Amino acid sequence: MTAAAQFAECPPVAPEILAEIKSVLGEGGYSEDSLRVEAKLTEWRGKWKGHTPLLVLPKTTEELSKVVRICYEHGVAITPQGGNTGLVGGQIPFGEILVSLERMRTVRDVAPTDDTMVLEAGITLLEAQQIAEKAGRHFPLSLAAEGTATIGGVISTNAGGTAVLRYGVTRDLVSGLEVVLPNGDIFRGLKRLRKDNTGYDLKQMFIGAEGTLGIITAASLKLFPVMNSRSVAIVGFETSQKAIDLLARAKQETGGQVEAFELMGRYGLSLVLKNIPDTREPLEGVYPWYALIEVASGDPEGAETSMERLLGAAFEEELILDAAIAQNDTQAAAFWRLREEHSAAEKVEGAAWKHDISVPLSRMAEYMEEGAKAIEAFLPGARLVAFGHVGDGNVHFNVIVPEDMDAKAFNDLRDEGSKVVHDLVHQYEGSISAEHGLGRMKTQEALLYKDPTAVAVMRAVRLALDPKRIMNPHVLF
Amino acid sequence: MTAAAQFAECPPVAPEILAEIKSVLGEGGYSEDSLRVEAKLTEWRGKWKGHTPLLVLPKTTEELSKVVRICYEHGVAITPQGGNTGLVGGQIPFGEILVSLERMRTVRDVAPTDDTMVLEAGITLLEAQQIAEKAGRHFPLSLAAEGTATIGGVISTNAGGTAVLRYGVTRDLVSGLEVVLPNGDIFRGLKRLRKDNTGYDLKQMFIGAEGTLGIITAASLKLFPVMNSRSVAIVGFETSQKAIDLLARAKQETGGQVEAFELMGRYGLSLVLKNIPDTREPLEGVYPWYALIEVASGDPEGAETSMERLLGAAFEEELILDAAIAQNDTQAAAFWRLREEHSAAEKVEGAAWKHDISVPLSRMAEYMEEGAKAIEAFLPGARLVAFGHVGDGNVHFNVIVPEDMDAKAFNDLRDEGSKVVHDLVHQYEGSISAEHGLGRMKTQEALLYKDPTAVAVMRAVRLALDPKRIMNPHVLF
Repeated sequence: MTAAAQFAECPPVAPEILAEIKSVLGEGGYSEDSLRVEAKLTEWRGKWKGHTPLLVLPKTTEELSKVVRICYEHGVAITPQGGNTGLVGGQIPFGEILVSLERMRTVRDVAPTDDTMVLEAGITLLEAQQIAEKAGRHFPLSLAAEGTATIGGVISTNAGGTAVLRYGVTRDLVSGLEVVLPNGDIFRGLKRLRKDNTGYDLKQMFIGAEGTLGIITAASLKLFPVMNSRSVAIVGFETSQKAIDLLARAKQETGGQVEAFELMGRYGLSLVLKNIPDTREPLEGVYPWYALIEVASGDPEGAETSMERLLGAAFEEELILDAAIAQNDTQAAAFWRLREEHSAAEKVEGAAWKHDISVPLSRMAEYMEEGAKAIEAFLPGARLVAFGHVGDGNVHFNVIVPEDMDAKAFNDLRDEGSKVVHDLVHQYEGSISAEHGLGRMKTQEALLYKDPTAVAVMRAVRLALDPKRIMNPHVLF
Repeated sequence: MTAAAQFAECPPVAPEILAEIKSVLGEGGYSEDSLRVEAKLTEWRGKWKGHTPLLVLPKTTEELSKVVRICYEHGVAITPQGGNTGLVGGQIPFGEILVSLERMRTVRDVAPTDDTMVLEAGITLLEAQQIAEKAGRHFPLSLAAEGTATIGGVISTNAGGTAVLRYGVTRDLVSGLEVVLPNGDIFRGLKRLRKDNTGYDLKQMFIGAEGTLGIITAASLKLFPVMNSRSVAIVGFETSQKAIDLLARAKQETGGQVEAFELMGRYGLSLVLKNIPDTREPLEGVYPWYALIEVASGDPEGAETSMERLLGAAFEEELILDAAIAQNDTQAAAFWRLREEHSAAEKVEGAAWKHDISVPLSRMAEYMEEGAKAIEAFLPGARLVAFGHVGDGNVHFNVIVPEDMDAKAFNDLRDEGSKVVHDLVHQYEGSISAEHGLGRMKTQEALLYKDPTAVAVMRAVRLALDPKRIMNPHVLF
């Protein structure tokens, strides 16, 4: 977690190399407009503010290939950037050539019969969802930044989101990729086959590689049926373990039709009710834990029937204390808002150490209990907000500054405090980055926990594809 | 393809190296019993008959690691073998040390709350299904050889099977792996997390690598809910395109609850009815194309209701000509038998060229029509049997010897005839090995169709992990 690693610099690039790069780009293929460049150099929360000798804006894969080939020849480093919504600084250059795919926005193909669409990297996630919808299909990847985050970015970071429980992470939604490799060669792997056993599945290497093995220029994405009914409920529990027990039961009884299962502790919910306008208690009583559950079905009445059956039985067996099923879309949206406003509600309370962790579901309740104790022991009065995609074994385990503590003093303790959280995650066989990646922020820290053999293999693979280490050199191992 | 490549040999291994290997193995850690060794040297249809200087039978990952380290030091080649049910010869050594995982059969963990089980590589697929069932869960990978095929083998070949449409291929069912790497190091990646974004997802490299990047010793596998209702139907169509249209509709209307959608042409079905005892026409009339459809639901009555609604509407719109829904398990089994006995029924008719191909679903009907014409033009009277997992865009497109032709003359034409089929597959953006892999049989042929950049990347990755190329050296690129 040394600051040095987070802001590591690349050496200056000779003017004649920059001129050579510009010469192979068509009109609008690069920018020196300081406002335009500036916007891409600042991480959106202001945590990283980088610099670049040149912003490259290729229009085609071939154009990008030429640029990368020049960089490779001269050993010049490159940072690729999508929508600049990343949370770990992997998209910010400190001296690297900055490549933005924002001009590569062609819809190359939409094939509903194949349940596939082929999109260029610069298309946003929200647009991708809309393209699918227009074709009578559903593209299930959904996350807060979807209006800005791009296809190239979500694939490079293997993004998660709110529908992982049913549909998987981004990796599970990709059937093919086109990638400009570190030497400038183009890997043309835009297959739209469900089955192809003819050698290693190379696309897997580039998914989640955070731009270290090449630049994704287009992807073939899987499409799914549009569901014909949906039901959203909020449920109150005495313990988080009971929520996890209900999740197991919900998966079983609905035959895997649970789309979302989001856990919220009372303290986090109380901050939403206190700090966010137009929110209200979802249940009559007050409970230690809550879950937001969404079930969807192909049967026009299936979702509500399933939800009622599930919650009715759970109530009788005292697995749950209370529940409310949304009676219409407005109510469903109000329930979802209670979950989605957690980050905003937290922010009002002051500084926080944020953690994006996963542990096996069977150990989640125990982890959260032990984690709370460890944080209280480390910093008495620290306020814990645990919420998130518990259906995927992933929670955001955030620590807010004690009410009477100075923000600066609190922030000075961040690295040590996060280590308390992450050491415990490691002990529980979990991950310190469930969905955000490592970027510039967590790479050094991850070395404390990763299997050294795994790190050695990653380095060998990277060296094999990028012997000069020009691709996002300060990100990953 | 060339016989030379299929039967390529490794040089003899010095006796002192063999002695060194034996010395690190515990009791029963190797075998020189000729009967036992012999059984593993013969491919089950007799297409390959290999030889080995030593059969190694490790009991633990650590034991295997020691053996591989010795081999690596001396540059001695290794072929790993699972249940020896492969169809492309990837498991047969010609001079390589043969490593069988048959003694590594420990169930390391079963965690229903995590929807995960951790099994050693020597456990059979059928046993894996049973272990899941005992824990109240479903492990959906299912294929003809499941009583013999092992977990290590199905992962190394990324096997497909009959439930891919809903659950995906083997790759989609693996959440973690333990692997002995070519240099003897152990990659310990038995995570059971749904989300972990801390660097490259290394397990993906070993899945489907056919033993060329290491030896899988254990796997963490995903479990699914047991479905509460199931419905099986046989449907008759005028064209294969109408079957594909029904498939799209079935996925949509059931919200993705179609577990299997298997296509059969009339000629293949007629061979089953003629050559297999106790089979009968499933429908009153005779139709050019048939599909076997299985729908499963979490709702106790859901599957049958969905199936009836789907077929009722399809019949009214003249998408289908006739349909029968199985009224009980016996009838469902009888329907499945019509599909499963295709290979046996074909065999009675004499020699055949077999093809395991996939093309995008939207082009499947056209491909099959053009393929039939191309085969008829190449060898008039050749009998085409097309059947299989059309839900995955995958059919077995097999060509049976003309009734009046000599088997020898027919077999002499195999390479040329297969090239006709595969050239067309390539033209239709498909794969010449949808689920069986390349092994010794198809590697050379695949080079005709693979993107050279992809092959170069595969070679670079292989060289990075296995610089002496000791792991299954004559398999893949």
